[in-house]
Amino acid sequence: MNRNDIEPRIRESFDRQRLLQTLGARLGRVADGEVEILLAASPQISQQHGFVHAGALAAIADSACGYACLTRMPEDSGVLSVEFKINMLAPALGREFIAKARVIRAGRTISVATADVHAIDDAGASKCVALMQATMMRVEDSPTIRA
Amino acid sequence: MNRNDIEPRIRESFDRQRLLQTLGARLGRVADGEVEILLAASPQISQQHGFVHAGALAAIADSACGYACLTRMPEDSGVLSVEFKINMLAPALGREFIAKARVIRAGRTISVATADVHAIDDAGASKCVALMQATMMRVEDSPTIRA
Amino acid sequence: MNRNDIEPRIRESFDRQRLLQTLGARLGRVADGEVEILLAASPQISQQHGFVHAGALAAIADSACGYACLTRMPEDSGVLSVEFKINMLAPALGREFIAKARVIRAGRTISVATADVHAIDDAGASKCVALMQATMMRVEDSPTIRA
Amino acid sequence: MNRNDIEPRIRESFDRQRLLQTLGARLGRVADGEVEILLAASPQISQQHGFVHAGALAAIADSACGYACLTRMPEDSGVLSVEFKINMLAPALGREFIAKARVIRAGRTISVATADVHAIDDAGASKCVALMQATMMRVEDSPTIRA
Repeated sequence: MNRNDIEPRIRESFDRQRLLQTLGARLGRVADGEVEILLAASPQISQQHGFVHAGALAAIADSACGYACLTRMPEDSGVLSVEFKINMLAPALGREFIAKARVIRAGRTISVATADVHAIDDAGASKCVALMQATMMRVEDSPTIRA
Repeated sequence: MNRNDIEPRIRESFDRQRLLQTLGARLGRVADGEVEILLAASPQISQQHGFVHAGALAAIADSACGYACLTRMPEDSGVLSVEFKINMLAPALGREFIAKARVIRAGRTISVATADVHAIDDAGASKCVALMQATMMRVEDSPTIRA
Repeated sequence: MNRNDIEPRIRESFDRQRLLQTLGARLGRVADGEVEILLAASPQISQQHGFVHAGALAAIADSACGYACLTRMPEDSGVLSVEFKINMLAPALGREFIAKARVIRAGRTISVATADVHAIDDAGASKCVALMQATMMRVEDSPTIRA
Repeated sequence: MNRNDIEPRIRESFDRQRLLQTLGARLGRVADGEVEILLAASPQISQQHGFVHAGALAAIADSACGYACLTRMPEDSGVLSVEFKINMLAPALGREFIAKARVIRAGRTISVATADVHAIDDAGASKCVALMQATMMRVEDSPTIRA
């Protein structure tokens, strides 16, 4: 797929993801088979110990995996999450979080992607705090399911 | 563990989970080995197709699994998510969502729980839209990790 | 689907699963949405500590999940494992193991099943030692992919 | 940990894994944080379509993940599988399969590893057919749990 085509389509789709706006996430780099989503730490997304909630990290990693798969699908495609699995590797502490997803296999119906979530601290140091392995399904673009 | 003790502790912990407040979730039933968390549908938690985002369902299911495990842990325990896996079974459409978690195994260090997430429509009909299997770890209660 | 039709089809398919014969597994109960596979304990399927290897339990649970999904698919269907996740809940010790799978959702393309694996000891007592959540895909029956 | 120490310990442990012998697996490269296990294709490990059974691939990937984690644990450690998740990426066809595991995080109690399983065809070409993400637990070495 033409990269000139896919990036605006993903940015337009991202802007419709209201949860990601609610969390304070923004779309980063979009490349062939790779998508990054950033999330600024804030008290609004914490769990009971003050770390960022696993659900917030899962949300950005899941969306990054979906879009990474979408970059390898035909133009008339929408993407749905079939399932994902995420390991929490370290307490989610930091100034900002980056979910970096990449496609592992792009199939006709089923695609698989992985995502690392890195925490960036105030000094700019990066640490991997979560790891996702996700299964995505291509659906034909329709009035209900777009991109 | 004495139920009279654990329910207030979980409610107090829940109130510190700012992400769950941001999403609009509230704690439902707390029983021995079982915890429910409710989430009202709203545009603020949608993904690009207008369904509720998988990350929001994962957040309530993850917290419900953690608290379900906590009901079977000693009094001085905090709980951390090691990992979880969630299947999306149907589009997350409805008026309200309920994550119902129950402990499958309560170990000394590692516990396992599952959660169903049901969507309730305007007529009150219920449909299972997501299924989680989660691994939790007991940590000793400390100033940083409580309940 | 007519149960009179599906059970012989699954038994015939099971007999082609050479790994399951190599492990010493046999097909148990086949019902609408539910399939059981049994495995006798033996030194040949152990891991380094003398317990039954997680891979052997995963093999019977995966096949049981696949067949449980197949009972809800159209007649001309074959089934492939998309992915599975399994938690080991207790050391796999016992005389015999039973993987009991049941369909959670039967979709047009994607189905989801769960399986408990129980260990039966010499006194006949049963204990759940593993829990699987699996995603299966329907493919059209063909000379390469049957049942 | 001294590599001179760990490789013989893993080879001795591998030889006690009777399932892996039953399947025809052998231990490949052992390095700091990385372990490979090889499996020759044979009819004895097939599923109903003639591909290698997902359970056999899961068995070698699980053991490779466990040993990869063990290379980063203290000397008096045994390793147990807490859980694993595996995606099947392509039909498991080939002459030989290699599970290549590497540690992602080595914790005091919990470690996480991933493994790719590659199929090697008759021409020597390699293709990734499965991907695992696994959680392992350190236990103290004892008469029952060694390495």
